[in-house]
Amino acid sequence: MPRAAAESLDRGDPLAAARELFAIPDSGPVYLDGNSLGRPPGPVLAAIEEGVRQWRHELVGGWQHWIDLPLAVGDRLGRLVGAAPGQVAVCDSTTVNLYKLAWAAVQSRPGRSSIVASASDFPTDRYVLEGIAAALGKSLVLLDASEPEELEAEVARSLDSTTALVCLSHVNYRSGGRLDMGSVTALAHQAGALVLCDLSHSAGAVPVDLDGWDVDLAAGCTYKYLNSGPGAPGYLYVNRRLQDDLHQPIWGWFGQADQFEMGPSYRPAPGIGSALTGTPPVIGLMAVDASLGVIERFGISAMWKKSQRLTDLLIELVDGRLAPLGAGLATPRAPGRRGAHVSVSHPLAWPWCRTLIDRGLVVGDFRQPDVIRLGPAPLYTRFVDCYDAVEAMAGVLADGLDESPRRPRVT
Amino acid sequence: MPRAAAESLDRGDPLAAARELFAIPDSGPVYLDGNSLGRPPGPVLAAIEEGVRQWRHELVGGWQHWIDLPLAVGDRLGRLVGAAPGQVAVCDSTTVNLYKLAWAAVQSRPGRSSIVASASDFPTDRYVLEGIAAALGKSLVLLDASEPEELEAEVARSLDSTTALVCLSHVNYRSGGRLDMGSVTALAHQAGALVLCDLSHSAGAVPVDLDGWDVDLAAGCTYKYLNSGPGAPGYLYVNRRLQDDLHQPIWGWFGQADQFEMGPSYRPAPGIGSALTGTPPVIGLMAVDASLGVIERFGISAMWKKSQRLTDLLIELVDGRLAPLGAGLATPRAPGRRGAHVSVSHPLAWPWCRTLIDRGLVVGDFRQPDVIRLGPAPLYTRFVDCYDAVEAMAGVLADGLDESPRRPRVT
Repeated sequence: MPRAAAESLDRGDPLAAARELFAIPDSGPVYLDGNSLGRPPGPVLAAIEEGVRQWRHELVGGWQHWIDLPLAVGDRLGRLVGAAPGQVAVCDSTTVNLYKLAWAAVQSRPGRSSIVASASDFPTDRYVLEGIAAALGKSLVLLDASEPEELEAEVARSLDSTTALVCLSHVNYRSGGRLDMGSVTALAHQAGALVLCDLSHSAGAVPVDLDGWDVDLAAGCTYKYLNSGPGAPGYLYVNRRLQDDLHQPIWGWFGQADQFEMGPSYRPAPGIGSALTGTPPVIGLMAVDASLGVIERFGISAMWKKSQRLTDLLIELVDGRLAPLGAGLATPRAPGRRGAHVSVSHPLAWPWCRTLIDRGLVVGDFRQPDVIRLGPAPLYTRFVDCYDAVEAMAGVLADGLDESPRRPRVT
Repeated sequence: MPRAAAESLDRGDPLAAARELFAIPDSGPVYLDGNSLGRPPGPVLAAIEEGVRQWRHELVGGWQHWIDLPLAVGDRLGRLVGAAPGQVAVCDSTTVNLYKLAWAAVQSRPGRSSIVASASDFPTDRYVLEGIAAALGKSLVLLDASEPEELEAEVARSLDSTTALVCLSHVNYRSGGRLDMGSVTALAHQAGALVLCDLSHSAGAVPVDLDGWDVDLAAGCTYKYLNSGPGAPGYLYVNRRLQDDLHQPIWGWFGQADQFEMGPSYRPAPGIGSALTGTPPVIGLMAVDASLGVIERFGISAMWKKSQRLTDLLIELVDGRLAPLGAGLATPRAPGRRGAHVSVSHPLAWPWCRTLIDRGLVVGDFRQPDVIRLGPAPLYTRFVDCYDAVEAMAGVLADGLDESPRRPRVT
């Protein structure tokens, strides 16, 4: 496949205009790590400036409108992930949100003793559940399956009357494998268990339909495909039918029914408001809001279409250029089983990835033990970027890797 | 007292230069709410810009240095609050930090059944403890005492072999009353209980000596006297002697010993690192770092000296100008029992406070049921500001308040 073919795909890309918003320099490495930290779109930078301006000029009076942000931005984010209003809040970190939700779920099923999760899910998900299981005397069942279909079959086998909660990522952070959350949820509900879904590696690139899937709970982050900045706030979803029965454990003044009465005891706010805890990060919330505006302008369905074409192209290039050099595809081939990133395995994945970064060619990221993740972002990654990245990967692998690449503290 | 006396105090103020950093407009109301939301100093605005710049240009590579921020900024904040390195982390919100610490403390005293706190402390503190008591089957004893000495005597009376934890604010959010945390801690330790101290209304204005007091745990916020922006991250302190024995319940990937191994189970990082949970808010952390730089430039002892003079002046003015109009001082008179703000009580405090804000005269804040808090900030509040504020308060009260001030949603 010649580079001209990729260029031609870019010329026909209805999202080409979106890239302009990101003011990407002409030189520099190909950035395929928007699934770890997304690039800043102009409107998000403007929102941060506006947040700072409001702080300077409105001072404490700014709270008259800031106070609405966690739930207002939550409703807006809800539209992106198929949640009707009143079910999403933007607050805390993904980790803290997973904790609040998983705790509430397990406590709402007192007769049930186990939590089911995937051994290959992102560490924070597993660790949070491990901590909750330890604290509440439950067992954590970590299923070992590399393919989405296998994992779903394992979930089906593991479910029984002891299962309180099934916690799974919609898209796996490492392989990019995608679960059919609607089916998983139906199975879990049949067994009387609740479902908590981590959307960190899907929302903002892959269509999500929380209400349609009927999942109970979800959480995710806004600094990957939602381009809201390093450590931008997390979010959570509580299905409306559960909001009266689930009680998260961190009782703070933002979750209180009449916050400024400052009354003697905690009365949870009605609805999703009770999921809030402390004072929310205002400027981060404004960044998320602006980022959602960018996505709405182009539409998630157009983004998903482009994302699929980008990953199709990457897989074609991996097969054609990297497989002959000993690399393998570590992402499911079936389009219905993939998210928005593609992983490549190689025994030398670690020095390969570092060499590409250190030489300023391609920024992907290494994941233990032998994978490089390539995360094209539909709003700003071009088809030629994928082409150039794989060419550089092939070149580096064929010509020889740096022998002892500096071990960075963050991988 | 003539205004000239206040002007003369400003001319002799060694911190007058600090105000320049805040670029405060010449017109506008007197802002006495820096104890709710501090004004932005220039270096903090520059740090936010720099954070945004790093995100744009370093992208995910920025994590090579961002990863250090929670503990590095924690150590720097530690110097301000009398904590040797390795005991403070900047992370999450005050509420979430109080939760993590109180939970760990109560769980470390399994034979003990009660938590002691103050009924007049800030709601989030009480609510968090109420939630933990409910979850762990403990009782929450809320002491009712308005003066600091009374509260300390109540604490002494309440302590016994069932007390797991005493949680108190160093400076009360409403009255400004200040506890002798060293004495309280000694008493609690004699009874075998742990002490958790909320520094939200003291750190950054009032000297804090955590190691010297030998308190076990502390938490606080950075958007009041630490001027780091609305919803900037909270912080926590765990005394080194307890770090091996206390285990906070939110197990996230930032608290893991070898974070990027992404191993199968959670092993808490050594030391204060295990207090971290999820991905930290990078730009907020950079704001806190810059704000600490500003405080270091002028020194907390000079700030405290000025703060005491500001509150002395406010009390003199309240006595002279407002007491004849029916207002009372709601803050302890003894200098050793006060923090950095002064509260004024009046049966019409609510319309009084709103009238002052709505007419653009003075921004203080109302606290239920009958108090206006006046929080001068030593870095940017002038003595004439206090003078002008009280004159405006007297004028408004004498001339008649707005009859039905608009009820804002945030008070």
